[in-house]
Amino acid sequence: MIGHQMSNNLLLEPLPVRAPLVAQTAAAIRARIEAGRWHVGEQLPAEPQLATELGISRGTLRESVRMLISNGLLDRRHGVGTFVARVPRPSIDRGIDELFGATDAIAQMGYRPALGACSVELVAAPDVVARELRLRRRTEVCFIERVRLADNRPVVLCQDYFDATLLREHDIEVDHVEQQILARGGSLYAWLERDLGRRIDTAMARIEPVLATLTTAAKLEVAPGVALLRLRQTHFGPDGAEILYSDNLHNSDLMHFHVVRRRARPTF
Amino acid sequence: MIGHQMSNNLLLEPLPVRAPLVAQTAAAIRARIEAGRWHVGEQLPAEPQLATELGISRGTLRESVRMLISNGLLDRRHGVGTFVARVPRPSIDRGIDELFGATDAIAQMGYRPALGACSVELVAAPDVVARELRLRRRTEVCFIERVRLADNRPVVLCQDYFDATLLREHDIEVDHVEQQILARGGSLYAWLERDLGRRIDTAMARIEPVLATLTTAAKLEVAPGVALLRLRQTHFGPDGAEILYSDNLHNSDLMHFHVVRRRARPTF
Repeated sequence: MIGHQMSNNLLLEPLPVRAPLVAQTAAAIRARIEAGRWHVGEQLPAEPQLATELGISRGTLRESVRMLISNGLLDRRHGVGTFVARVPRPSIDRGIDELFGATDAIAQMGYRPALGACSVELVAAPDVVARELRLRRRTEVCFIERVRLADNRPVVLCQDYFDATLLREHDIEVDHVEQQILARGGSLYAWLERDLGRRIDTAMARIEPVLATLTTAAKLEVAPGVALLRLRQTHFGPDGAEILYSDNLHNSDLMHFHVVRRRARPTF
Repeated sequence: MIGHQMSNNLLLEPLPVRAPLVAQTAAAIRARIEAGRWHVGEQLPAEPQLATELGISRGTLRESVRMLISNGLLDRRHGVGTFVARVPRPSIDRGIDELFGATDAIAQMGYRPALGACSVELVAAPDVVARELRLRRRTEVCFIERVRLADNRPVVLCQDYFDATLLREHDIEVDHVEQQILARGGSLYAWLERDLGRRIDTAMARIEPVLATLTTAAKLEVAPGVALLRLRQTHFGPDGAEILYSDNLHNSDLMHFHVVRRRARPTF
């Protein structure tokens, strides 16, 4: 689905590996556009000249340009050249103590939110999920994996788990879940509230820095070994009942978090 | 000054790669003690046997054991053998919205807090520091770098900056700063409040996952390329005035953060 932009040989390399030149080059072109080097509608220099400037091969440049075209940043007019389609928007920056839907966060920054690869299956609850949702070990849970996109670029890889009983209660087939979530704009929170009557109110999140593995890097379209922000969250309803366990990996180039910290009681 | 750490995740140079075997081995021994394989006071297997079990050379094993002895986890009785001195304590886990001193956080978990390497110098404010503290560009600031230890293991690498005028106001020589902070138990907050009359009240923190560079890995005694949690913080007094800018890197094996997130206003 979104793996097509990652070359196959990258997936076979041992971890951790160097950032691929193609992604680095795309970032360098993006940075030049952000810095105002080329404006919207302006034509990029000819391939040989730009490749020399960036110190890379023409093949690498061509791949990077293809990546930026698919991101909507560049535009190719056949027989004419490559043009700047738009200036990259600032990254998404949110308070970490605020529980928001990714779809909203993406849209509020002026990006077009979309759902990338999505899979839904019933699985035996992994131990951490059973413990966090207070389910018996190996209880059947619905496992949903989604990639959230901002203007076609992957921002978050979401892995969500909830008690499969919830689907049975509402006579929902596992094969229909993806479609129903899509009908709610890709928002799991909206679907849980509107279709399953479970409103998410708060979440307890553990904040962890992790390295992108081969698998997660491919899904987020980043280089394996880059640092990602992981939020592992147990979600509660207004009555304090456990509803949902999420394991989210954020592309830290695109999604930033901040927090206001307060001295509760000085202890010195 | 901090420019080398401001790079984003896609470093342009190849990343330092393999975790050093010594640290990996120390972690493996630590994990076995945590799991109850050997109890406090119990003797570790003989060197050749343990090296075979761990699949490493005796030289590597010896170095790892030395590291664990200096961490207080193992104890060597000369002519007898190596013994388990204590079971590793759980990691330090704090709310990220709580502004606390590292010294307190370490002590509250039952570890012995201490100050590792510390350096103090006057430098021209890096751009980000000048901007965050609302100082003129290149204003002279006091730059303090500290490594905070828990039972001798580095937990946080702290880089702090504040307007050097504060030192002049109080007739404090830069050479005396380290001593004064040590006299406050290594706490910069306590020193600022008690010796300089500046109480830290809140901080705005940016939460970022980063990779340990060769330099920061050495200071935190972790492998280069591991994921660290970085908190870049602007600290304010009760009147909202900017006082201190900090760039903290946390060893994420030892220091964990969590947060309770709330749905402010559902937007779907």
